[in-house]
Amino acid sequence: MSITQAEIKQIRSLREKKFRDELGLFVVEGEKLVQEALDSDFEVVRVLRREQIGEAAMARITQLSTPSPVLAVVARPQALAAPAPVRGLCLALDGVRDPGNLGTILRIADWFGVQAVFLSDDCVDLYNPKVIQASMGSLFRVRTSTADLPALCRRFREEGLPVYGTFLDGKDIYRRELSREGLVVMGNEAAGIRPAVAAEVDAHLLIPSFGGSGAESLNVAVATAVTLSEFRRR
Amino acid sequence: MSITQAEIKQIRSLREKKFRDELGLFVVEGEKLVQEALDSDFEVVRVLRREQIGEAAMARITQLSTPSPVLAVVARPQALAAPAPVRGLCLALDGVRDPGNLGTILRIADWFGVQAVFLSDDCVDLYNPKVIQASMGSLFRVRTSTADLPALCRRFREEGLPVYGTFLDGKDIYRRELSREGLVVMGNEAAGIRPAVAAEVDAHLLIPSFGGSGAESLNVAVATAVTLSEFRRR
Repeated sequence: MSITQAEIKQIRSLREKKFRDELGLFVVEGEKLVQEALDSDFEVVRVLRREQIGEAAMARITQLSTPSPVLAVVARPQALAAPAPVRGLCLALDGVRDPGNLGTILRIADWFGVQAVFLSDDCVDLYNPKVIQASMGSLFRVRTSTADLPALCRRFREEGLPVYGTFLDGKDIYRRELSREGLVVMGNEAAGIRPAVAAEVDAHLLIPSFGGSGAESLNVAVATAVTLSEFRRR
Repeated sequence: MSITQAEIKQIRSLREKKFRDELGLFVVEGEKLVQEALDSDFEVVRVLRREQIGEAAMARITQLSTPSPVLAVVARPQALAAPAPVRGLCLALDGVRDPGNLGTILRIADWFGVQAVFLSDDCVDLYNPKVIQASMGSLFRVRTSTADLPALCRRFREEGLPVYGTFLDGKDIYRRELSREGLVVMGNEAAGIRPAVAAEVDAHLLIPSFGGSGAESLNVAVATAVTLSEFRRR
């Protein structure tokens, strides 16, 4: 099997969100991630191996500093129609911008059995290579959808499902009864949850600090993990 | 104030652990971190501002892709003599290699009021620029020390302080009584806690996954946060 110059060029273009959006494709690299893609519901368009296309071609299409022996081109799933509340525990991300954080949050959501992750439209692109790497394959297992978060929060509440969020002036999460179902909103790395979303949140939670800590906050992925752990523990 | 070529060269050399070790110095950048250094017990050797030394000199000494307007050269504290158990909740890191993880763990330890963080000698260098950035200033507040972890675990146990560790085959952390004092050991990103250290751990803990998750593990910083949250919550 060989690869044409046009194909190389197309795969290279997938480094940019603009072309990922246009072509509806993204790239995953590494034996483990490619296997996860193949095992998932995602459509794997092409698998390219170093021994087939050669080291030089691999070096041109890779998005990693050290090319992996295998790379797959994967089709993005169709966007859901109007995102709707889902039973069980769900997560909403309001403007999470760092790809490492988003990938780590997907891995955390997977670990804690989150039913769906909803993203505001200014979150970092789900198919950014750093998101995919940091998600360790969880991108292929966790249900995700872009959503208008204020409207989504309202729909959860209309269905009688509680909406939680974490705030630096919220109430001690350890002293609060938490439901098994509902939506947990996490905010942007610097600005937190936007007012328009905060206004739709029923319960403002805080992970308290201890021992007169001088730290001002926790990283958003870390805060997501502590929060979901509180919802899951019994 | 100006800066000499020799000084520029010396500050540039601090990008490498070898020279940080030799000179006993490290660099912090950004208004916030420099202020945290000045407010801390650390000795700030020099503060260099762009308006004083000029843009060109700043671009040569910076360790960031976008130079910050201010950079400080800070003296490393003297290494502790034999690291000893400390009352309260302590953390030990067995071979944490990723600088982002180590910095994030320091921030988490700060948030949860950890008394001391002990590092095996193959952890990533505490004064690596990425560690400092990720710690968000917590490096200046959390007590740290390199330690022989098996010996340290024994010393905690001799003083009647429990030693905990997280393991993928450990027991459900949510169902276990946890002490307010003692040592919590976290392992390397890929290999976990080494056998020689594991042998000295009293209680093997596991953060369980939920909903038939396909995720194999949590990131070590994330697992540290969930674990410390469990120790602190009441």
